[in-house]
Amino acid sequence: MLVAKTIEEIRQFACSSHREGKTIGFVPTMGALHEGHVSLFEAAAAACDLVIVSIFVNLTQFGEGEDFAQYPRNLPGDLALCREHGVCAVFTPDEEEMYPPGRLTEMTVRELDSRLCGRSRPGHFAGVATVVAKLFNIVGPDKAFFGAKDYQQTVVVRRMAADLNFPVEIIVCPTARHSDGLAVSSRNIYLSPEHRKQAPSVHGALELAAQLIRRRRPPAEEIVSIMREHLANHAPQGAIDYIQIVDPKDLTDIRTTKRAVLVALAVKFGTTRLIDNVLVGP
Amino acid sequence: MLVAKTIEEIRQFACSSHREGKTIGFVPTMGALHEGHVSLFEAAAAACDLVIVSIFVNLTQFGEGEDFAQYPRNLPGDLALCREHGVCAVFTPDEEEMYPPGRLTEMTVRELDSRLCGRSRPGHFAGVATVVAKLFNIVGPDKAFFGAKDYQQTVVVRRMAADLNFPVEIIVCPTARHSDGLAVSSRNIYLSPEHRKQAPSVHGALELAAQLIRRRRPPAEEIVSIMREHLANHAPQGAIDYIQIVDPKDLTDIRTTKRAVLVALAVKFGTTRLIDNVLVGP
Repeated sequence: MLVAKTIEEIRQFACSSHREGKTIGFVPTMGALHEGHVSLFEAAAAACDLVIVSIFVNLTQFGEGEDFAQYPRNLPGDLALCREHGVCAVFTPDEEEMYPPGRLTEMTVRELDSRLCGRSRPGHFAGVATVVAKLFNIVGPDKAFFGAKDYQQTVVVRRMAADLNFPVEIIVCPTARHSDGLAVSSRNIYLSPEHRKQAPSVHGALELAAQLIRRRRPPAEEIVSIMREHLANHAPQGAIDYIQIVDPKDLTDIRTTKRAVLVALAVKFGTTRLIDNVLVGP
Repeated sequence: MLVAKTIEEIRQFACSSHREGKTIGFVPTMGALHEGHVSLFEAAAAACDLVIVSIFVNLTQFGEGEDFAQYPRNLPGDLALCREHGVCAVFTPDEEEMYPPGRLTEMTVRELDSRLCGRSRPGHFAGVATVVAKLFNIVGPDKAFFGAKDYQQTVVVRRMAADLNFPVEIIVCPTARHSDGLAVSSRNIYLSPEHRKQAPSVHGALELAAQLIRRRRPPAEEIVSIMREHLANHAPQGAIDYIQIVDPKDLTDIRTTKRAVLVALAVKFGTTRLIDNVLVGP
């Protein structure tokens, strides 16, 4: 497995693979890899000839006061996991390699960047869109794989890739979950034992919402109330950032649940912010 | 010569050329092709295995009240010229193909976009950067060729391509000129006979500046005064938008001319705005 620290190295690897007629599946990550990432590697390996993973904790998508410094980092463990799962090359640039001084180009994905998580994380999705555009240009993948847990991220990346005509197919894979339903996340390790006990209720509230919608399509408002009550009872230490019922395409709030809906929420346990969502068909 | 109206067609052509190991030289244009463009085709043909040209009058780089509707269009003539000069494929998308509804991604190249022409053309360089990024993703060129007449455009495109890691080499070719020195431009046809007579003084003023700088490196202020006087005498109907002496790298104003400088200006004859520049080494 190639471990490339420079753009030059990974580009040479990708170009020579393309020249041999091989398709590249790409999984961009911030490291601290877990079974959610592994499911993306497997999806990429099933759909493409070879898999390239990037590991880069992207400063530009963290806001002031967010957990950039504390974000978990474990490169040796990450590389071992990549090796175990048939990844062909890992791109692990440093800050200087990705963001040399003098950059002036700014990219935003209007509207989508200010909904859901965007309200409490201004600039986050501009940072995501920009680093993904850079990584697409560096790696030149045929398909790129993202987890559904970060649903808004997948909508932003799809929009950016379509608007700028990136020749990359965006593939969204199901959220990996622990046996108690909690979405697997690099940030889960920061939950206290008590918070960890309460955290599965985030998924529990979504399950409850999905059941309600499938059974009797109640108004969005009613669903949100029931979810709030569920969380108050089962996760009293969780501070709700938002619970929203939105159009899965453009993330705008919707009132009725007759059509396809995305139920999304963010809940903070201490300083650890968890997000999760469920998509319910029409 | 392939004439492709869709992204799908030109992408297939470019991909199969790449698969055959051929390098692609790309010349993005707004049509109304002239000998300036031809010099870019020739430079592209000399440096690459095949040449792709795009012809698209990009609405997003025209401001309100600018000449989008009046911009000269001559597709049959353009295609004939491309055929004559060994162009392999021309991409001529319509508005809908390049900008389908629903786009939300915005790109700007801060600072560079507000200097020189950017002062009187807000949004122009954001439009240029965006359409060039799209075209790079559509055509996938190895090298892209731009004329030095639009010097600021070349600086903006270089910055954007570097910041987003586009795997494209940007090559800037010398400005083509009529025998009287006037820079060849699609907009020259709109000059009245009297304006056409006075227009070469735009280049004359630049030549004068270059001579002065090479001879005795006077302060920028003095050069600008001399150029203004030259234009007042030789192009009395020309309204000066700006004359600036700037750092060729970042386009910031400079006072002394001891190092490399770019002398740039924009002059309006009636509604026709002409730009030109000269780069003088240290």
